[in-house]
Amino acid sequence: MAKQKAQRNQRPRARLPKGFRDYFGPDVIGREEMLEAIREVYHRYGFEPLESPAVETVEALGKFLPDVDRPNEGVFAWKEDESDWLALRYDLTAPLARVYAQFRNELPLPYRRYAVGTVWRNEKPGPGRFRQFYQCDADTVGSKSPAADAEMCMMLAEVLEAAGIRRGDYRVRLNSRTVLDGILRMAGAPGSDMPEDSERRRDAVFRAIDKLDRLGPQGVRALLGPGRRDESGDFTAGAGLKEDQIEQIMDVVAPGKGSDDELILARLDRLGSAAEDLSAIERLVRAQGFGPDRICIDTSVVRGLGYYTGAVFEADLTFEITDAKGRRQQFGSVAGGGRYDGLVRRFTGQDVAATGVSVGVDRLLAAVDARRGDPVGVRGGTGPVVVTVMDRDRLDSYQGMVSELRAAGIRSEMYLGNPKNFGGQLRYADQRESPVAVIEGSEERNRGVVQLKDLVVGRMVAVELETSDAWRTQPTQITVPRERLVEEIRRLVAVFDLPPADQKTELARRRAVYLGQV
Amino acid sequence: MAKQKAQRNQRPRARLPKGFRDYFGPDVIGREEMLEAIREVYHRYGFEPLESPAVETVEALGKFLPDVDRPNEGVFAWKEDESDWLALRYDLTAPLARVYAQFRNELPLPYRRYAVGTVWRNEKPGPGRFRQFYQCDADTVGSKSPAADAEMCMMLAEVLEAAGIRRGDYRVRLNSRTVLDGILRMAGAPGSDMPEDSERRRDAVFRAIDKLDRLGPQGVRALLGPGRRDESGDFTAGAGLKEDQIEQIMDVVAPGKGSDDELILARLDRLGSAAEDLSAIERLVRAQGFGPDRICIDTSVVRGLGYYTGAVFEADLTFEITDAKGRRQQFGSVAGGGRYDGLVRRFTGQDVAATGVSVGVDRLLAAVDARRGDPVGVRGGTGPVVVTVMDRDRLDSYQGMVSELRAAGIRSEMYLGNPKNFGGQLRYADQRESPVAVIEGSEERNRGVVQLKDLVVGRMVAVELETSDAWRTQPTQITVPRERLVEEIRRLVAVFDLPPADQKTELARRRAVYLGQV
Repeated sequence: MAKQKAQRNQRPRARLPKGFRDYFGPDVIGREEMLEAIREVYHRYGFEPLESPAVETVEALGKFLPDVDRPNEGVFAWKEDESDWLALRYDLTAPLARVYAQFRNELPLPYRRYAVGTVWRNEKPGPGRFRQFYQCDADTVGSKSPAADAEMCMMLAEVLEAAGIRRGDYRVRLNSRTVLDGILRMAGAPGSDMPEDSERRRDAVFRAIDKLDRLGPQGVRALLGPGRRDESGDFTAGAGLKEDQIEQIMDVVAPGKGSDDELILARLDRLGSAAEDLSAIERLVRAQGFGPDRICIDTSVVRGLGYYTGAVFEADLTFEITDAKGRRQQFGSVAGGGRYDGLVRRFTGQDVAATGVSVGVDRLLAAVDARRGDPVGVRGGTGPVVVTVMDRDRLDSYQGMVSELRAAGIRSEMYLGNPKNFGGQLRYADQRESPVAVIEGSEERNRGVVQLKDLVVGRMVAVELETSDAWRTQPTQITVPRERLVEEIRRLVAVFDLPPADQKTELARRRAVYLGQV
Repeated sequence: MAKQKAQRNQRPRARLPKGFRDYFGPDVIGREEMLEAIREVYHRYGFEPLESPAVETVEALGKFLPDVDRPNEGVFAWKEDESDWLALRYDLTAPLARVYAQFRNELPLPYRRYAVGTVWRNEKPGPGRFRQFYQCDADTVGSKSPAADAEMCMMLAEVLEAAGIRRGDYRVRLNSRTVLDGILRMAGAPGSDMPEDSERRRDAVFRAIDKLDRLGPQGVRALLGPGRRDESGDFTAGAGLKEDQIEQIMDVVAPGKGSDDELILARLDRLGSAAEDLSAIERLVRAQGFGPDRICIDTSVVRGLGYYTGAVFEADLTFEITDAKGRRQQFGSVAGGGRYDGLVRRFTGQDVAATGVSVGVDRLLAAVDARRGDPVGVRGGTGPVVVTVMDRDRLDSYQGMVSELRAAGIRSEMYLGNPKNFGGQLRYADQRESPVAVIEGSEERNRGVVQLKDLVVGRMVAVELETSDAWRTQPTQITVPRERLVEEIRRLVAVFDLPPADQKTELARRRAVYLGQV
């Protein structure tokens, strides 16, 4: 007994490391469909796929240099025996920089590439925060043209719509680092106590502006000035600007209600050449018919301090969702990007113009799911048609039905568990969310027919009856000639090709027919 | 100067760790199309996708237990700070075992899942041998039925055909571990010096049988007996069987020329119950119309010594390819699998019946590429239509052409590099393998037309001329009204939807038309 227990304790635990998770069935398919939709847009826009490996040298990844014994601050890293430190990539941009530096003499210029893949962060996991997640990027390397930035914004809008976000449910907000620098210069005019070279001060100003959405104008004013105490009593130090400097900045960043692009652009005119790239991008996207309902200028957008060098943009979802605690809240940012000309400087010592966009696939998926209701109110019929086994000696015949269905493109399988318990076969079909179970006992065989159990309507009826097993005895079942098997099942599963509203009508109609049979 | 040099030396090198590689454009798309074709078959057969993370605990992965300080024998592993050893998965079966053990009370039984993803091996890289590669698996957990094994074999045949391997170019070879055990029992009859419990001897017999393809019957006989000296003079110790034992084994394993399934099955009859599962599988696949040209019994198939517990199968490609040194050789195995009932024993202490198949995606891709010739003899036109920039002030107009093309589903882009050098724009389009370049200068604009440069035919002409730039001055160019832009380009790119033979005819026809214009 003691030995048995010891053995059991030696067994490994079936669990994942913290911050990792498995994805099953519909979640995998939903993500793959979204990635395919995004890839189609990137590809149609002329970008080429690039797939770099998950593993890079820490040296090439940068940012996390091996100046300590264990350089895994934020990355998963390990030392090869007597060789390099290796690490899992933490984004798709660092590998792009390595690829471009390595192959720059062979690649077309500009080099336009897209990449879809998982990245890893060695961070403390939290609720909804995972250490492996998907990114989906497109970048144009080697183009200084504002048309390259404009293209990114338009493509991002098309990507969101292709992924299932309706027009009006998102907004691509556009700004430029040069505008922000212009604001700083304006605020740093003679008499100001903020020298242009004060990076700490500059960062404090950008961080304050970045919080406009969350804190509102009053909060930002406080953070631009002496600082801000939040509801919990915590104090955040401010940028220490004077009142008139704050006014000038707020005048551009938060121009009040009723502002539209013209109004903002008029204010940007005061910034002079600092607003040139933004104006050029705006003109290009408008000329292609992208209105402010899809792409708008928003001078409060600040992304990646010290990283972006020109245009910056961010895609926000504008609809509200209900969180786990029942509170309504905006969904927020699902994608972003901008111009960053220092991409390969680490490798080559030279600046190369680059602009790009990155889509947070998992957040976008969550958003689409939150927005889409369940069309039929019952579990779907995405599982396979299950051909049940009534007679063990007739596996060839049951498998033959499956072969016919598969040849017709209908997802199906023969029940492969222990066929003794017939109720277990139907429970299995139910658990798999099958649309139809096929039944052929000796009586049916002698009559040349099969029974088709309509499991989708069956589950509807079960929900109404509120007893989990009662539906199995309900007559949501039809008898059809064996030779019409494929045709009749095709008719039953065709409901899933209908628009959601028509699905409901059709299923209700079927339900009435079945119950009328009794 | 010295300082500059020092700085340059501090720059990281843009390179990958040994054994890893990047995949560009067409390679990524080719793989994605193949994976999608395989996924479609798995899904139609009723399997559900499962996506587990790249990272697992070393404990859960098993096989590589942390009984040494650094347990990275064959895996990439690292220690979390004061916590578990983590590792990159080395296959998709170990994660399946962990998932099944962890969620077995919630998953349907049988659990039928497929998985597509990269795996990592910390092995010495070699030519064509990488440390990250794709696997594409399907498994049925919790079914003892031979119908589950039969389904795997049939599905594997369909997968290969969906991936582009023609019927006749592959063979799924089927065997069973119980047959092999039966052979051993037969050979270990009274008078034999091979006790059934001699694992070392058993493994030597299996290893010998496994080499039938490579060494032929004589080589296998030697390895079953005293041993074999190869051409280089190296000696491999044999299993030490007696002559009559060897005869009996060879009688079943290599029954001579002209053998067909019936002949083999007749011999298997001698093995009695040991051949029951193989006979059942054979009957099931034949009943579904899979003949010996697609799935055949081959008693020399031995896979995964000490791992498989029942049916084993392997898919070989039967056509020859020419290797790098110009030698003809068989392509060999691209997929395999079998029944392994010890899947979750490590976790739960109990056996669970399971059977599965794994496709080596990268090898299969290489095979399809080797089999498929280049249909047009010139580089393809898979790149985007490139709208060139003749006049910097008309970016809106050029971008407008691109918008029209994209809205019509035609892959396209505006040239985003420096437009000064027009030849550079055409070289760019050529490097991108564009089908068409669009040209609109002031003269064309005034006349309301655009020039379409047919780059596919242009490259054909260039190949003929054998001077790399001459084609750019060739008249493979047509003038069309601006409003017919989309229509005319659609006509030009439609050639890629034709079968290869028709593509050649159409391109030759076009070439004649262009040259007739001169």
